[in-house]
Formats: sequence, C-alpha cells, structure tokens
Amino acid sequence: MSKHWKLIDSEKAFDHKWFKVRKEKVELPNGKIIDDYFIWDAHDFVNVFTITKDKKIVMVKQYKHAAKDVLLEFPAGFIDEGETPEETAKRELKEETGYEAEEFTLLSSLMDNPTKQDGHTHIILAKNCEKKHEPSFDDHEDIETVLLTKEELLEKIHSGEIYSTASVACAMLGLKKLGLFSP
Amino acid sequence: MSKHWKLIDSEKAFDHKWFKVRKEKVELPNGKIIDDYFIWDAHDFVNVFTITKDKKIVMVKQYKHAAKDVLLEFPAGFIDEGETPEETAKRELKEETGYEAEEFTLLSSLMDNPTKQDGHTHIILAKNCEKKHEPSFDDHEDIETVLLTKEELLEKIHSGEIYSTASVACAMLGLKKLGLFSP
Repeated sequence: MSKHWKLIDSEKAFDHKWFKVRKEKVELPNGKIIDDYFIWDAHDFVNVFTITKDKKIVMVKQYKHAAKDVLLEFPAGFIDEGETPEETAKRELKEETGYEAEEFTLLSSLMDNPTKQDGHTHIILAKNCEKKHEPSFDDHEDIETVLLTKEELLEKIHSGEIYSTASVACAMLGLKKLGLFSP
Repeated sequence: MSKHWKLIDSEKAFDHKWFKVRKEKVELPNGKIIDDYFIWDAHDFVNVFTITKDKKIVMVKQYKHAAKDVLLEFPAGFIDEGETPEETAKRELKEETGYEAEEFTLLSSLMDNPTKQDGHTHIILAKNCEKKHEPSFDDHEDIETVLLTKEELLEKIHSGEIYSTASVACAMLGLKKLGLFSP
C-alpha cells in the first residue's frame, strides 16, 4: 500500500497576487529527504455542465492565453472568497451566458494535477436552463455562447475540437448523471 | 468572435529545474496592457487508457503529494526528451504495471489549464494488454496495479473515488473510442 510522505517544512517560493508556488521539504517512506518539492497554489474553480429544457448543451467559446487559442469549453470560473461551488456556478453561468437554472448540483470535486497543483475543479450540473438575460462579462472578456446537441458534444470531443481536460471530464460526469452516457 | 491577445514580452519569472513560471506582457483586443500574466511552463505528459484482452481496465494506485492522498488513476508519466507520446505510454505502462500492448494510439492532446498552464496531457489507448513483467519503478515510487471492470470504473468516477481530472477525461475518451460508452 502506497504510503503518505511526511511534511517537514513548507514555505513560499514565488508569491504574486496572480500566481503562488510553495516549496515543501518532505521525507519519503524510504527515508529519503526531498528539499525542493514545488506545488502550485492554484485557485479552486467550477465547470458547469449546463443543459436546457430542450436538451441543448450550453458551452462558451473564448480566447485562453496559455493555449494561445480560442477554446470551446463549459462555462467556468474561479470561486470568489466565501462562495460555495454552487454559488459560483450560478454567478458564472449568468455572467458568461445569461442562462439561469433552478438547481445547481455538485457532481464531483476533481484535482487537475494531484502531483504538483493544489486546488479543486468542482463539476456542477445545471439542468433545465433558460436564457433570461444578456451576458454581462468584464471588458477584457469576449465570450460567445454555443448550443450543442449531445451528439455534437461527443463528436467535438472525439475530433479534438474540445480539448480542455476539465471540459472532457465535465462532459463525462454530466452525461453519466443524466443517463445520456451512450453513443 | 473572440480575438487573440498580442504578446509584447515574455520572461522567466521563476526558474527552477522542477518548476518554471513565465511572465508575459500582453495587449488585449480592447487595447489594455497587462504587464504580469503568469503561465506555468509545465511538462507534457501522457495518460494511458489500458485494457486487457478480457476487458479489464488497468489502473494504478499511488501517493500524490499535492493531493496528500493515495489516488487511483490511469498509468501516466512525463514525456522524456525526444520521446513521442506513444513511446512514453509504452515505457510508463511497462515500468508502472509490467503490462505491454502491441499498439498505442493517440486519442487526443488535452490542456489541463488553457488559461494559466502550458503543456499537453496526451491521452493514449493501449488495447489487448498483457502482463509480461513485474513492475520496475524508481525507489521513491510505490505503485499498486488495480484491475477494474467497466462498471467498476464508472462507479468509482461517479462516487468520486477517482478524482483526477485527467483520469476522468481519459475514461471518457477511452470508453468512447472502444464503443463502451454506455451505462
């Protein structure tokens, strides 16, 4: 059975408002000491599997700067101080798309990189959504709403057009929960 | 249509053998300049959807230090200099589990965090696997092989026991490719 490592020390290695890295000193089960194990202190965020009353899946298209590309993904965003994942999902869905739902259900709390990154990606299901407003995103955002059938969603994952790891995982959990997990 | 940002400058902000962060100066489509956009220069790695001749899915259980937990995941590893994703998949699968496959097929190249992280998670399918050796991992590794049916895999994703984002995405792509994408 794989054993936990022993934490000896933890300090800030890189500390900026927008990016934080921790350096940890740890002892492995075999007694070996590692002085410089780095972990990215990333924010928690949510991905929202959003589906309308007529079974259209609501996604968003926007530029992402690490990818240097325009990506098709599920509505998503960082959790603000004091928010629950469900509250973030409600806020981000409204801001990015103008859609609202009566109920937001947490499906799973994932980790994007359990080796080197802290923080969770919470996958939220929003059923029976309806467009109630125009989107209201920040002036540095430019977000296009895209509606897909289940078949189109699967085809775009299969073809690689949808290539954010969290969006593929979100599709898996959402389709499974809704009993739509079939070809 | 969402427009690309213009890259003005890029420099090393944190530069250690095991963790590298870039600071970029960019101009947004609305003319706004951001001086400090940070991107983690992460390694490329592979996740291997591994299935045996009798349809058992091969996974591994090991301690991951950012999660501070023992996780059940698909066999995975960093791409070494000069390797293709398929070569990494073959090497890591053999090292971590002792299983071999005749063919390794790239299903998709995902990005774990297209906003803040470089590097790809390549999802590889390894079909008709057989155990040919004992595992041969490094002395700081302690990896247990676990065989699951498709139903057990889906149940463990649904229950949250499997919670690495890449493993959930890997399950989606592997099951879809094999025509096993049904409840």
